[in-house]
Amino acid sequence: MSSTGGVTVSRPVYLDHAASTDMVPDAVEAMTRLLSASRNPASLHGSGRLARRHLEEARESIAADLGARPSEVIFTSGGTESDNLALKGIFWARRDADPRRTRIVVSAVEHHAVLDTAQWLADHQGARLSLLPVDADGRIDPADLRTELAAHPDEVAVVSMMWANNEVGVIQPIAELSAIAQEFEVPIHSDAVQAVGHVPVAFGASGLSAMTLTGHKFGGPRGIGALLLGRQVDCVPLLHGGGHERDVRSGTPDVAAAAGLAAALRWSAANMDTEYARISAIRDRLFDVLLAVPDSRVNGATGSDRLPGNAHVSFRGCDGDSLLMLLDANGIECSTGSACTAGVARASHVLMAMNPSLDDARGSLRFSVGTTNSDADVDAVADVIGQVVDRARMAGLTAAGRR
Amino acid sequence: MSSTGGVTVSRPVYLDHAASTDMVPDAVEAMTRLLSASRNPASLHGSGRLARRHLEEARESIAADLGARPSEVIFTSGGTESDNLALKGIFWARRDADPRRTRIVVSAVEHHAVLDTAQWLADHQGARLSLLPVDADGRIDPADLRTELAAHPDEVAVVSMMWANNEVGVIQPIAELSAIAQEFEVPIHSDAVQAVGHVPVAFGASGLSAMTLTGHKFGGPRGIGALLLGRQVDCVPLLHGGGHERDVRSGTPDVAAAAGLAAALRWSAANMDTEYARISAIRDRLFDVLLAVPDSRVNGATGSDRLPGNAHVSFRGCDGDSLLMLLDANGIECSTGSACTAGVARASHVLMAMNPSLDDARGSLRFSVGTTNSDADVDAVADVIGQVVDRARMAGLTAAGRR
Repeated sequence: MSSTGGVTVSRPVYLDHAASTDMVPDAVEAMTRLLSASRNPASLHGSGRLARRHLEEARESIAADLGARPSEVIFTSGGTESDNLALKGIFWARRDADPRRTRIVVSAVEHHAVLDTAQWLADHQGARLSLLPVDADGRIDPADLRTELAAHPDEVAVVSMMWANNEVGVIQPIAELSAIAQEFEVPIHSDAVQAVGHVPVAFGASGLSAMTLTGHKFGGPRGIGALLLGRQVDCVPLLHGGGHERDVRSGTPDVAAAAGLAAALRWSAANMDTEYARISAIRDRLFDVLLAVPDSRVNGATGSDRLPGNAHVSFRGCDGDSLLMLLDANGIECSTGSACTAGVARASHVLMAMNPSLDDARGSLRFSVGTTNSDADVDAVADVIGQVVDRARMAGLTAAGRR
Repeated sequence: MSSTGGVTVSRPVYLDHAASTDMVPDAVEAMTRLLSASRNPASLHGSGRLARRHLEEARESIAADLGARPSEVIFTSGGTESDNLALKGIFWARRDADPRRTRIVVSAVEHHAVLDTAQWLADHQGARLSLLPVDADGRIDPADLRTELAAHPDEVAVVSMMWANNEVGVIQPIAELSAIAQEFEVPIHSDAVQAVGHVPVAFGASGLSAMTLTGHKFGGPRGIGALLLGRQVDCVPLLHGGGHERDVRSGTPDVAAAAGLAAALRWSAANMDTEYARISAIRDRLFDVLLAVPDSRVNGATGSDRLPGNAHVSFRGCDGDSLLMLLDANGIECSTGSACTAGVARASHVLMAMNPSLDDARGSLRFSVGTTNSDADVDAVADVIGQVVDRARMAGLTAAGRR
């Protein structure tokens, strides 16, 4: 809140950067510079060649910042498309090459863009699913992947294991998981949407076959992302047409957005060390404030195995949506860990996978700290969190009494 | 060319608006206003609700300008995605409901985003294809659709017939084609990418089940488009995930781009009559200039059955790529009617469908006039077209002599 000539102006404290974070100024500048100027990079004339040059400069910049080759960068419309392309495209290509290869191995805590895609392939395209469990901290055990691949050596089409979880922020042991997949000569994809720009990610060194990133999670534009795809990895297109992007993803490339994506990644790479330290310090103070509330607990791993901005906390005996709405009314913006369908609060599949005997997963909140936050935002949470949780608990008791 | 203090500055004459046209100022303004400000419209807090409001305002504006209901507007990444979603999604949904329905009926002159999608469904998903012919002017005969549907009354999954052809600019009899599809209770999709914003298009009145549009063909941003999808039309998602956009197209919506798309469409609707008259007059002058070259001829229908900005002309005895490059060297930007693969000039599938006995379809150019053009651009073409065609013909003769 700030007071301007007697009028109180409220600017919400935004602690939901994992949902979508603000564009960094470098990205806004790079994108607006080309927004109205750039033309179709597939055109052969001078304007087209200039647009193509801007597109390829963006591709080279992204490749350099992610330890990949330029030819491995396939521009897409974002994380959901990249995940769908990787899973469906590699599944179809592998099954075409060998009809026995119909098994998809994913973790139980993947984003819906991976889980629902895998489920559709199972329901409609003849895939079989293997869901790997996680431990109580949300970590995938590489030994489980080895066991699964050893049990079905000729059956697996593709493996998908996220780099960092979008709800509880756990960073997975991608290098170990990739090494095991390579040993069994099975392609492995990773949804790295929450990791790229926040923690070091090097595609070539990771051993991954494919990796998803999206602009609006690290200061780039919405509506653009990429699939990094190893040059030897066969992948059937999801979008057929003019044959753009190595014939894997047709559609006129959005040159301005690609430039914005590259600029945001360049900014993130240049500032990663200082932002990691600054953001994780704010997040740690936030944890102190949240855990000072009675009957609260952290969800997910701590320390270096957790994204720097992520704080995920459960408050016993209340409903996440009530907490979210009461915080919102007090100018604090965050999210629940759970998806809601038609107004019915459902426990998060991530929390359920971490603790299958969980009796009360509903009262959970995800706070995600980003570039625009400061210590003052933690103070704002500290001012209200106690009374908000008290009120949500009273509402929960009243609702329970009515049943 | 303009002279500035002794330095000659060349600004190319852009006559390739059908490939990608410049954003109109209203669209730039609407998009940049939200570019860095908007957040995730799926978030429940105040920032999310504001983003959702901007998204829904864009949806309502687009629906109003296209005679559709807001719930029929599904935002996508552009024309290629919309075409793929319509064909694959409706094909899968229809086959799921009735395994006999595996036939796809398209015209021979569709864009590759439709043709290649249909071919993939035939090669890998069990579809059967019916390709409808066109006449010498590029028109689909509604009687051919009736014959095809009558021959396979229980087999057809989906029909796709473009509103206007991207190469030769022919406007198809969509109302008649839709009426026949409705009579046989078969869903019909139309790729209206080249029509929307340029000629009157009303989705509800058209009788179509689904219709593709994309921003960068009528002054909107690149990287965003929409599929208009009737509320009763079942369509399997191409992108699975969070369940955005009526559960048909997952992925965080790009609110700023949606606002830009809506603003461009609003501008186009408000200025359609004057721009149609202005652009078609420039195009008619351009036709006069081009057809003054000996051994040249128009491709495609004339009059009101042709897009106002399209001029497609063949020059006997020369190669389209040579013409394009020579014009480009003289500051005139246009495109060939043909797709090139690995440097090998192939005759356009559209021209071949219009005239199967064509002996020389290679020497064709598409000029497309847009909002930024004026009569001076026609003068610039007039200054060089004769010598450019002469030179290309001499190069053709020399190359033929070497063989």
